[in-house]
Amino acid sequence: MISPTASSRFIPGLADVVAAQTRLSNVNGLEGELIVAGFPVENIASRATFEEMVYLLWNDALPIVAQLADFRRALAAQRVLPLATADILGTAAARGLPAMDALSLAAGTLILDLANAEPRQQAIAVLARFPVIVATYARLLNDQKPLTPRADLDHAANYLFMLFGEDVESERVRALETYLNTVVDHGLNASTFTARVITSTGSDLVSAVVGAMGALKGPLHGGAPGPALDMVFEIGDASRAETFLRQKLERRERLMGFGHRVYRTRDPRAEVLSAAAEQMYRRSGDMKLYTLAREVENLAIQLLAERYPERNLKTNVEFYTALLLHGLGMSADLFTPTFAISRTAGWIAHIFEQRAQSRIIRPESEYIGVGNRRWIPSDQR
Amino acid sequence: MISPTASSRFIPGLADVVAAQTRLSNVNGLEGELIVAGFPVENIASRATFEEMVYLLWNDALPIVAQLADFRRALAAQRVLPLATADILGTAAARGLPAMDALSLAAGTLILDLANAEPRQQAIAVLARFPVIVATYARLLNDQKPLTPRADLDHAANYLFMLFGEDVESERVRALETYLNTVVDHGLNASTFTARVITSTGSDLVSAVVGAMGALKGPLHGGAPGPALDMVFEIGDASRAETFLRQKLERRERLMGFGHRVYRTRDPRAEVLSAAAEQMYRRSGDMKLYTLAREVENLAIQLLAERYPERNLKTNVEFYTALLLHGLGMSADLFTPTFAISRTAGWIAHIFEQRAQSRIIRPESEYIGVGNRRWIPSDQR
Repeated sequence: MISPTASSRFIPGLADVVAAQTRLSNVNGLEGELIVAGFPVENIASRATFEEMVYLLWNDALPIVAQLADFRRALAAQRVLPLATADILGTAAARGLPAMDALSLAAGTLILDLANAEPRQQAIAVLARFPVIVATYARLLNDQKPLTPRADLDHAANYLFMLFGEDVESERVRALETYLNTVVDHGLNASTFTARVITSTGSDLVSAVVGAMGALKGPLHGGAPGPALDMVFEIGDASRAETFLRQKLERRERLMGFGHRVYRTRDPRAEVLSAAAEQMYRRSGDMKLYTLAREVENLAIQLLAERYPERNLKTNVEFYTALLLHGLGMSADLFTPTFAISRTAGWIAHIFEQRAQSRIIRPESEYIGVGNRRWIPSDQR
Repeated sequence: MISPTASSRFIPGLADVVAAQTRLSNVNGLEGELIVAGFPVENIASRATFEEMVYLLWNDALPIVAQLADFRRALAAQRVLPLATADILGTAAARGLPAMDALSLAAGTLILDLANAEPRQQAIAVLARFPVIVATYARLLNDQKPLTPRADLDHAANYLFMLFGEDVESERVRALETYLNTVVDHGLNASTFTARVITSTGSDLVSAVVGAMGALKGPLHGGAPGPALDMVFEIGDASRAETFLRQKLERRERLMGFGHRVYRTRDPRAEVLSAAAEQMYRRSGDMKLYTLAREVENLAIQLLAERYPERNLKTNVEFYTALLLHGLGMSADLFTPTFAISRTAGWIAHIFEQRAQSRIIRPESEYIGVGNRRWIPSDQR
């Protein structure tokens, strides 16, 4: 019998093991800083269009005017679903499949007309089609007719158009672009790592993206912005906030939207999204929900600090993601798919980066089973 | 500018990092030993049915008669493709998609009727349907009508039946089962690792299997048994072998089917498969190809030892995989999909094992980009 011993070299979760070098983003959890493609996130997220951000990640430089125009045209031209993809979304909707399962499934079908395309062409098609898939599926699930994508709109604007079927005000497009830019890349999270492992075998871009989507679906990946806003709705009025939060903490329940595995201070993305949400709600003329959310946030941080002074629990990205996407008219089941629409661009940037290496990512396992079983025929067991 | 320095903690390929503990298999490359679920591979591969092997991997014990009967029934009952899966295979065949791409794509569609199933039920359905997908697709690609699966046959026999449409002799079924048992699990290779990373986020079994398939597709994963046999065909007659091999080595070309990243001696799986192939060819009454392959093997090992005495290049699993699967009537494009049919059982065993842990596999990245870019509007770039 071989047993695990004190000399085990097993590293649970691969914690603190450095599995990749990257130029794409840098997470400094202690200082609460996030660099995306060389920019502090707060310096770029609310300024760049999503097309500019993606071009930057994929090319390590901002596009000049002509390059940006080409890139926008290339994306717009791929904003169409192959028939088999549209069909499978219909089948999925008839079965009421959750949106993330449908998005994964549909993403896999993109290989059908991309198997022989160049990686750059695959990248553009996959990125361009994700919002089309999500919006098409959202409408099918709601018994609405899917809308035809518009080549005259940018990526974010077309997504909002396809969800809601109306011309979307530019400040709402800006709010969505700020969100997409803010969450586009974030170090070597589990889905990005999955994309890199698959790519390291020499496999194709669609396989790597589909694998990453599979990892993103998992609840431990951290993508659950819905519950953070549910709490604000449940509180309903600032006068009830303190009693509500204190009772929740007494029952030792987790306050959704606070605390992060990496950040020991306020998540820099929360700052950016809070400002974007404020601007959007102010333009809409109804600041009630935004104001309540801020009051809940301030109180929650204060109560968390009283109760867990050593833990430094601050607002995370999910709290303001929920507020912002809700303000754009999205239901909670669209929050994670919308996150995926953005992160796909990050995955693809990592796929390109990993492809430049020729080495397979292939760690070891440690055997903790027996080694001396001998065969017994079934009638003698 | 942050640059990589001598103090970099980056571990290329995660070489020698232990990322999992497992009871499923143990690869001892120095001694040329492989343990699968507690059995030396040569002790079990040619004795167990594939159903017994899978039951053993999934339950850490051989089944008693009643358990085995239940398991066989459960698999046979799932040997049917959902309509959407069959449809997508038709679409893929019309486009001439490679078999591994079609298998991945079809595997993703299995979520459609499994989204709410228990993991054990998902496992049985995925395992049961893979050979049905591969055989259906192989026939579609050859303009043959797919055959209806048979519930009265075991897993391996049904696969051969669905490929070739005739009752298959028991010694051929035995040869296939020995192959499937031999390659069912092999430590933490890249596809198995991918399945574990995806599972570690709390994601579902279908997502993990599809991600693993994506990794297996990559040429660096090592699954390319076709070329090993091509060389034997090219040699054609033992009298030409020495000249052929010497010329190939002079040109510094790689001899396919020899050498392995881990094994420093003969791959123990090659031994098992060689014996299985010999028995099958002998029963068929035509030993010509088998005899030639052995002669090529012996000569190749001798010439490799002369040329690279320090490298200890021995026959690997691909050489006899190709010989055995060819002898079963499979074309080379079925070799990797048939490997996947087996390895799926190993992936699923690792998924169960990983699921018992609650920790996400999430290594770190090291930033090698700049950190101080400042925004420039597009008209000033």
